[in-house]
Amino acid sequence: MIENNSNNNTNSNNNTNTNNTNTNNTNTNSNTNNDNNTNKFKGKLFGIGVGPGDTELLTLKAVRILNDVDVICAPRASEKQDSTALNIIKPILKERRKDLTIFDPVFPMLEDESLLNSYWNDATSLIISKLDEGLDVAFITLGDPSIYSTFSYIQKKIQKNQEYYEIEMVPGITSFTSCAASINKPLVEKDEVLSIVPKIQDNFNGFIDNSDTIVLMKLSRNKEKINEIKKDIDDLNGNIFTIKNSSKKNEEIINDFSFDKTYFMTSIVKLNKKINED
Amino acid sequence: MIENNSNNNTNSNNNTNTNNTNTNNTNTNSNTNNDNNTNKFKGKLFGIGVGPGDTELLTLKAVRILNDVDVICAPRASEKQDSTALNIIKPILKERRKDLTIFDPVFPMLEDESLLNSYWNDATSLIISKLDEGLDVAFITLGDPSIYSTFSYIQKKIQKNQEYYEIEMVPGITSFTSCAASINKPLVEKDEVLSIVPKIQDNFNGFIDNSDTIVLMKLSRNKEKINEIKKDIDDLNGNIFTIKNSSKKNEEIINDFSFDKTYFMTSIVKLNKKINED
Repeated sequence: MIENNSNNNTNSNNNTNTNNTNTNNTNTNSNTNNDNNTNKFKGKLFGIGVGPGDTELLTLKAVRILNDVDVICAPRASEKQDSTALNIIKPILKERRKDLTIFDPVFPMLEDESLLNSYWNDATSLIISKLDEGLDVAFITLGDPSIYSTFSYIQKKIQKNQEYYEIEMVPGITSFTSCAASINKPLVEKDEVLSIVPKIQDNFNGFIDNSDTIVLMKLSRNKEKINEIKKDIDDLNGNIFTIKNSSKKNEEIINDFSFDKTYFMTSIVKLNKKINED
Repeated sequence: MIENNSNNNTNSNNNTNTNNTNTNNTNTNSNTNNDNNTNKFKGKLFGIGVGPGDTELLTLKAVRILNDVDVICAPRASEKQDSTALNIIKPILKERRKDLTIFDPVFPMLEDESLLNSYWNDATSLIISKLDEGLDVAFITLGDPSIYSTFSYIQKKIQKNQEYYEIEMVPGITSFTSCAASINKPLVEKDEVLSIVPKIQDNFNGFIDNSDTIVLMKLSRNKEKINEIKKDIDDLNGNIFTIKNSSKKNEEIINDFSFDKTYFMTSIVKLNKKINED
């Protein structure tokens, strides 16, 4: 439906409106026909990776779609914070010529799966209601939508829905390739193996044995385990790089792990087993 | 030097010229001062990831730099073939307003390290001569410059040079996140581990044990080993997806490994250990 330059605009209670957003418009879309088995009159859902932080790391495809969709769904971590993904794309939304509805549901970082699930269900219902109205929706997510992304939950829930909805993932720059650019080093060459590990788990030593480079998305708070791992890395003449706020103005590189609480922090462990770095 | 909108243009013997490229211009740049210890008068080298194939998957940053540099270096696999990376960026070069020199050195796929090295050395010398003339050079590479990229060789050689040259990596969309978009599935969620493996090596079973998703960049020709691996994947209720020409018009998805000789082919093995796909 992205070619349909309609002016339909519906607002939910938790909308954030940009300059050119009409509020309280009535939905005059005659295409809203949930009984129809085809998705001809339904909107399309895009899962868009907005990259690590720098607006310039958006792809041309992401920019085109973000300027064309009717609705943008921008998750945020808490009521107190703006959506980081939304802040990344804001500069390019100025080019838009049609009405836009933005909603920014809170997806808190919770351990309680069932409570977390209720947040996902609410967001999914809201997205489905927009798609049923024939509106195209872009769900924006940091980095890439296939790598530890909040989009995966929405995607699965909508794919499992008894009604068929068209979904397209738009790849984005992942945090770890941005971090490689920050330290100006390759992640892997030739026959090297790269492991992307969300956090330090018990089998971390196995990754040291089997990988040439390890990307560690989050650091454990277990200092004892970290020190043990640091010794192993040192024994292999490996290097540790921790990159905070990669691609942003306040980017920072540390040649060690860091116990900081920066959300945008990734560590790269290069083990230099096969390729001589000298 | 990217702000310097100079018209200097030097051509090497193996140049490919685009519409707006001047040939045989004399270099009138007075900044060529190799004795100067600072890099004030030297050009800057960019390693630019151009993504998996679709021009729209270029980042805004890549487009800006490609429209601004003096020289583009586009590697190709053989004398008989055009540079694939160059074909990806060609549509955006139409926006350029200043002179451009393109050279497309052949980097053959060779097993012989010393012969291969002579190709790298020639390309590096050519790039250095352009940087010394005060020209900014963009080396373009498929996917991302940190992941199995030809750029890594050039980068290391120039970083090891006794003269200092400014180098910046510009991240690109990797083949495997594009492949995830092709199959419309997440690569990793929550605590899952992703392994990026260049080809099937002896320790491949270790990755099946320790990873939730494996990206296999190239398939081995060892059919016996492949069949053994397929059995292991099957025992774990895993899924295999092979994506040919991801993001391109002739994109194709196969639910198995493939022994095709397509260069642009990546396999994703999803082991479904932790997260229920139903």
